[in-house]
Amino acid sequence: MKITIKHYLLFTLLFSVSAIKAQRFAENQSKIVLVVHGGAGTINKKNMTPEKEANYKAALTLALQKGFNELKLGKSALDAVQAAVNVMEDSPLFNAGKGAVFTNEGKNELDASIMDGRTLKAGAVAGVTSLKNPVNAARAVMEKSQHVMMVGKGAEIFATSQGCETVPTSYFFTQERWQQLERAKKSEMGDRSAYNFDPRESMISGVSDEDKKFGTVGAVALDINGDLAAATSTGGMTNKRYGRVGDSPIIGAGTYCNNLTAGISCTGWGEYYIRLAIANRVSNLIEFKNISVEEATKQVISELGNLGGDGGIIALDQKGNVAMDFNTSGMYRGTIDENGNVSVYIFKN
Amino acid sequence: MKITIKHYLLFTLLFSVSAIKAQRFAENQSKIVLVVHGGAGTINKKNMTPEKEANYKAALTLALQKGFNELKLGKSALDAVQAAVNVMEDSPLFNAGKGAVFTNEGKNELDASIMDGRTLKAGAVAGVTSLKNPVNAARAVMEKSQHVMMVGKGAEIFATSQGCETVPTSYFFTQERWQQLERAKKSEMGDRSAYNFDPRESMISGVSDEDKKFGTVGAVALDINGDLAAATSTGGMTNKRYGRVGDSPIIGAGTYCNNLTAGISCTGWGEYYIRLAIANRVSNLIEFKNISVEEATKQVISELGNLGGDGGIIALDQKGNVAMDFNTSGMYRGTIDENGNVSVYIFKN
Repeated sequence: MKITIKHYLLFTLLFSVSAIKAQRFAENQSKIVLVVHGGAGTINKKNMTPEKEANYKAALTLALQKGFNELKLGKSALDAVQAAVNVMEDSPLFNAGKGAVFTNEGKNELDASIMDGRTLKAGAVAGVTSLKNPVNAARAVMEKSQHVMMVGKGAEIFATSQGCETVPTSYFFTQERWQQLERAKKSEMGDRSAYNFDPRESMISGVSDEDKKFGTVGAVALDINGDLAAATSTGGMTNKRYGRVGDSPIIGAGTYCNNLTAGISCTGWGEYYIRLAIANRVSNLIEFKNISVEEATKQVISELGNLGGDGGIIALDQKGNVAMDFNTSGMYRGTIDENGNVSVYIFKN
Repeated sequence: MKITIKHYLLFTLLFSVSAIKAQRFAENQSKIVLVVHGGAGTINKKNMTPEKEANYKAALTLALQKGFNELKLGKSALDAVQAAVNVMEDSPLFNAGKGAVFTNEGKNELDASIMDGRTLKAGAVAGVTSLKNPVNAARAVMEKSQHVMMVGKGAEIFATSQGCETVPTSYFFTQERWQQLERAKKSEMGDRSAYNFDPRESMISGVSDEDKKFGTVGAVALDINGDLAAATSTGGMTNKRYGRVGDSPIIGAGTYCNNLTAGISCTGWGEYYIRLAIANRVSNLIEFKNISVEEATKQVISELGNLGGDGGIIALDQKGNVAMDFNTSGMYRGTIDENGNVSVYIFKN
């Protein structure tokens, strides 16, 4: 084919249109931001060796980088929070997925939820025992069913039918968590009744039994389209029984997300988070009081403390404003900004 | 013993103190009010025979009277909502307790929740199959455990240990509900995938398959101490599978209660109620925007419709203001005022 003037002009025109489109796209592109947490609680500095601290920070950094890679590729905030949570679910350090604590019966019952800030669609699973990455099952519930929440065996059957990876229950066995269960059972032989104990005392961290930690993990992301997503995943409470469900799989308590307000993921004493509908309360404060994500988070953490609860909240709005607040001595947490700069923290700054 | 002047004076003094106390008590006493719902949905007038209408209205009236009796005796709002919900759970007319619909596997999986507006304490059970009155189990979780939510077998073990009545699964068998399941299964053989159907079409009412009704029941009460309580109970969705959980046992979605704002109980397309955290949203609107319970309920029902959901909300504040709003053609509902006057309704007025 001979290149004629006509061809040349057409090519120039097409190129110009593409260039203009690309520029407009770049102008309209949102900041990309990702925030993660790996649980809040009483983390004693004296039990935190430099090596342990480095391990936690490395895991948080990997979670942030994996999620950020998705955002940089132009993928959705949902993809980013899922990728980040998957890293923490696959690490034995956090009480979610692989590192899940044991129930009283020596099982692992996992909960997770995810929410899309653009559509307000949400998905959650509770009490699943064979799914490697519960947050993937939560996303399948959101995207592949008309439902928001599925529990137990039914949730597993559905997730498996949607291609979610299953693992033998032995996958969740870690020596440390098993010993935690045994210690919890022994301590229960005291004067506390079986169902009347302080959950903080049974959500013992990977650091030491003295460190009362809520081992939930979570992430909130903002993608190039300006869409927010939030996700939370947990292994529940050591020695829990009676099919107890905490806030992590409860949309409005452990997770909430609305492009107009913020994406929110919580970690803490689940019962208080449910009673105050914490995640939805942060969102509603921003919406109805027109206050910042930082102010809203701070107020709700204060109200949580007034009611007797403790834990932490991460939140992110559409402008990229980040809040990471907690009323415990520490919260594993971190952010990655649009330039890929990672900041990770454990204690109060 | 001789009655001396001293005795006489002492008696007079004690009597006066008692009289003053009684008067002060009467002055401080709150209005007592109770509101109930028995489900919202597309209820066609043509399918509602005078006899059926009378049956529903009689059941709602009985629920209101039983709850009101508790309030008149000076008992708590919690006692009143429990008594009212128990009446509807024990009636085959409503999709809760006795009249629960069947799951795809031919079982009955029941959910319920309750919340105390004075303390913000709450309790919930989901997926229980052998408890006669799930709302009683929810109350046991709230009052006798440190938890808010228990699911499945664990919830049953706990509730039974607390004296909640169990029934054989045959108790929940009603010919009409069984036929509904069979019809739902047949209709599912069409082009809809098993987990991709409109829940409204599978929550078929006691009236007719054409009447798409959300068969949740609920109550909100205000007691003489000025305390509010709210409760919700449901049999879920006909033909449901995969351990689907709707909004009824989700604190913040199907039920919320705060003395400072209102008690709220919902009935509707559960997935939308969870995504909007409807009950908590009504409460937060009242708290943060300082609007009335009627305005807040109206706004949230409008937002529910905008998102594509439908159903109803009942709400009651500490001054006795009642809201009963819905965007379906009908909602079984009613109120009883402090003089014992009952008003029950099915269609829009």
